Amino acid sequence: MPKNNRKAVILLSGGVDSSTALALSLKNGYQVNPISFEYGQRHSRENESSRKIAEHFGLKLKEFSIDLRQIGGSSLTSEAAVEDHSPEEIGSTIPNTYVPSRNIIFLSIAASYAETIGARTIIYGANSVDYSGYPDCRPSFVNYMERALQEGTKIGTEEGMSVVAPLQYLSKGEIIRMGLKLGVPYELTWSCYRGGEKACGRCDSCILRLKGFMEAGSPDPIEYESLPEFYQAFLNKL
Amino acid sequence: MPKNNRKAVILLSGGVDSSTALALSLKNGYQVNPISFEYGQRHSRENESSRKIAEHFGLKLKEFSIDLRQIGGSSLTSEAAVEDHSPEEIGSTIPNTYVPSRNIIFLSIAASYAETIGARTIIYGANSVDYSGYPDCRPSFVNYMERALQEGTKIGTEEGMSVVAPLQYLSKGEIIRMGLKLGVPYELTWSCYRGGEKACGRCDSCILRLKGFMEAGSPDPIEYESLPEFYQAFLNKL
Repeated sequence: MPKNNRKAVILLSGGVDSSTALALSLKNGYQVNPISFEYGQRHSRENESSRKIAEHFGLKLKEFSIDLRQIGGSSLTSEAAVEDHSPEEIGSTIPNTYVPSRNIIFLSIAASYAETIGARTIIYGANSVDYSGYPDCRPSFVNYMERALQEGTKIGTEEGMSVVAPLQYLSKGEIIRMGLKLGVPYELTWSCYRGGEKACGRCDSCILRLKGFMEAGSPDPIEYESLPEFYQAFLNKL
Repeated sequence: MPKNNRKAVILLSGGVDSSTALALSLKNGYQVNPISFEYGQRHSRENESSRKIAEHFGLKLKEFSIDLRQIGGSSLTSEAAVEDHSPEEIGSTIPNTYVPSRNIIFLSIAASYAETIGARTIIYGANSVDYSGYPDCRPSFVNYMERALQEGTKIGTEEGMSVVAPLQYLSKGEIIRMGLKLGVPYELTWSCYRGGEKACGRCDSCILRLKGFMEAGSPDPIEYESLPEFYQAFLNKL
């Protein structure tokens, strides 16, 4: 394998962060191989977004199916209701939308896919500034996971393995501002945990997203069932 | 949760190592919750063994299904033939039975299950003495994976998370000698990669197993299609 191996696998959830990480990685010269997960999530509509975004960038999407309802333990993979939080509360505790070890499982499967196609980089749109408080988005986790993959995989042992989290320390506003410059088709993305016809505008994921668009000074192109006051006030000032 | 939380999840493959690790963990006072994986493996017969072993010890087996043929990359999950090796060759390179990142994926799912049932210990029958050369059995991997799970899970963040590999530094002979004392029903276990009616007696997994029984000075109770010379010689001396 060439020393300058730019082949990478990216976890593409169809949301704002992973779509922006994808556009950034392409700009940075990676040969990007997106992977998405059908895991029995309430908002499996996000996979439709993953498909459209991959298509937009002319990339082949690997769709992996793993039914995490076999484990449960989250409002995203069981009948439990999605809990909403105020913008101030978000990130201060681990909410019930947390799917136990979900991103650890996804990174492991991404590593398996990476090994199989000869990639030694995994791109992970984790963010620890404007995030839901999920422990698997924190830098300390990303660092140890990278070391585990370096030690525990064939390609990691032979050539090394990197887990790159290019958005780790950016605010949601900074991510979106960058994404707009990179031409990310945010109208194709999906963030809402509820997965209805329109985004709910009330769940943690919608709130973080709308706060980000407000900070970026640009209205969110997708449709919402209802809008939080802070965002309505932002729209009125435009 | 009580400070003295002895609830544990164990990866039970139905083979010699995980079955022995299970018996040892019970003896050490863990409340053991075994999990097995139907991953599209050629030798899915091992899951039958997992069921029988869990039943033998009066434990409820969690059976998780994840189709790793979606990734491929191994002779165990594709049409590629299982390569055999001499006893001397085994462990010196990574063989084509290596399933990319398999145990990393399994440990991640075990962590998800552990979180859901409130366990903060994962027992992993990895061995790095008499092993097939898989990188995900090495102590350095186990250590980093433990750190990743501590940082990346809710239970790890709140209470800590341990990955215990009690057989890590034992030879196969030592494992089996211990297991015989612990009453492990080795007649119920399955190791062969080929997954036929009888164990093949030629694949790396059969060779390591037979070598172990020979070293333990006790004949293997399961049936084989053919026996390697070294083991035949051992039987003749009994």
